[in-house]
Amino acid sequence: MKLEEKTIKSEQVYKGVLLEIYRDEVELPDGTKSLREYNKHPGAVCVVPLTKDNEVLMVRQFRYPNKEVMLEIPAGKLEKGETPLENCKRELKEETGANGYSFMTLGSYIGLCAYSDEIVHMYMCRVEDTFSQQCLDSDEFLNVEKIPFDRVVEMVLNNQIPDGKTQVAILKAKYLLDSKKI
Amino acid sequence: MKLEEKTIKSEQVYKGVLLEIYRDEVELPDGTKSLREYNKHPGAVCVVPLTKDNEVLMVRQFRYPNKEVMLEIPAGKLEKGETPLENCKRELKEETGANGYSFMTLGSYIGLCAYSDEIVHMYMCRVEDTFSQQCLDSDEFLNVEKIPFDRVVEMVLNNQIPDGKTQVAILKAKYLLDSKKI
Repeated sequence: MKLEEKTIKSEQVYKGVLLEIYRDEVELPDGTKSLREYNKHPGAVCVVPLTKDNEVLMVRQFRYPNKEVMLEIPAGKLEKGETPLENCKRELKEETGANGYSFMTLGSYIGLCAYSDEIVHMYMCRVEDTFSQQCLDSDEFLNVEKIPFDRVVEMVLNNQIPDGKTQVAILKAKYLLDSKKI
Repeated sequence: MKLEEKTIKSEQVYKGVLLEIYRDEVELPDGTKSLREYNKHPGAVCVVPLTKDNEVLMVRQFRYPNKEVMLEIPAGKLEKGETPLENCKRELKEETGANGYSFMTLGSYIGLCAYSDEIVHMYMCRVEDTFSQQCLDSDEFLNVEKIPFDRVVEMVLNNQIPDGKTQVAILKAKYLLDSKKI
């Protein structure tokens, strides 16, 4: 079956500080018309940062949509003029104060493919023992914690970490570490 | 550090057929004010459906935001009055024509915690050998494929499946199958 949908008309229906919402009129594969609503996003990065003792640097952060403090790996939005890897190194340093090295890709993550084009570039890395100060955005509040890697894997498998990107990146990192590819 | 943010004012800035976008004024942990924009969503389900030969029933679907045909496990939005499990059984049957049994939870998935409150309830199940007809929404076009489970795991690990919920659910299902918990 043919699956592609063609854009007939694209309209921006909301532009805020973070969200850019579009409502497009499309032609479906059978020739009929429909509407597609979605958010346009510049993309993002996330990283599994491992200390030499195989602890993960995690961040605890209040996520307003679910009104919940969530445990996640460090992450951030892509800025213009930065590659995903440059962005990842900067975000890691800003959120945790740690310098990362030996970065390895864990692939891409599209979190909600039905209505956001956001692609998250996932990495894992090692971090140096010495930390500098966090350097957060004015509206960013988060606590950094070191948790043993095996414990984080257990938490993912026991459904104690709802954040999607964290679940994927941790389980992929586990396969790489177990297969001694890193 | 205190992390909670308090709602000062909540405003709906867009209501479409799928998206409901809010812009809230909030009080940050340090007492200053900021804005949070997000989508309110009723929640969803997804499922890893396995045949007796350990093949996964997957769907190939055009995802408009990324203008890409994506390979995913069956999924759908929660409808009023249905439990996640009831919803999951219905969506599986509608999208693939298959009857599922021996459902097991794979936990929750929050795909983009920064700006959508959507929680996806993940499951795995077995499917009967006999299939009935697909029963799709009028604007839904998808192809069903059977792919060996080990091949899908390989595709996730080789970064050939960008869909987040599919990556998580497949990797968690792998742990359950390997640990003989299912």
